[in-house]
Amino acid sequence: MSTIRLDVKGMTCQGCVNAVTKIVKRKDPGADVRVDLASGRVEATTAVAADQLAAAVSAGGYEAKVAP
Amino acid sequence: MSTIRLDVKGMTCQGCVNAVTKIVKRKDPGADVRVDLASGRVEATTAVAADQLAAAVSAGGYEAKVAP
Repeated sequence: MSTIRLDVKGMTCQGCVNAVTKIVKRKDPGADVRVDLASGRVEATTAVAADQLAAAVSAGGYEAKVAP
Repeated sequence: MSTIRLDVKGMTCQGCVNAVTKIVKRKDPGADVRVDLASGRVEATTAVAADQLAAAVSAGGYEAKVAP
């Protein structure tokens, strides 16, 4: 388990936050996910690699990249 | 090509509409997609089956089913 950070563009409301949270949870049901709508920052404590989560969020229609 | 209809729950803003549109376009880049935020109705002219699109939208964090 480690904490990964993604920068996500395109989230503009709580519905978007819920959608992104669900995408991460689908990859790792045990993940602890925190989404900050204002900054677009997603943090997750998870066993899944950051780039895999970024790819899943991108496939969900948002623009996601691993935070530097 | 045919016109398929989905009922989608969880879209609450234009960001959600964009996300759902992108999910459908990822399955079928040539699809013509129309999303009505107020009703949750998604219509697409596409060669992809409605249940496959509903599954993709659901995987994207929304609750989607083929409209009756």
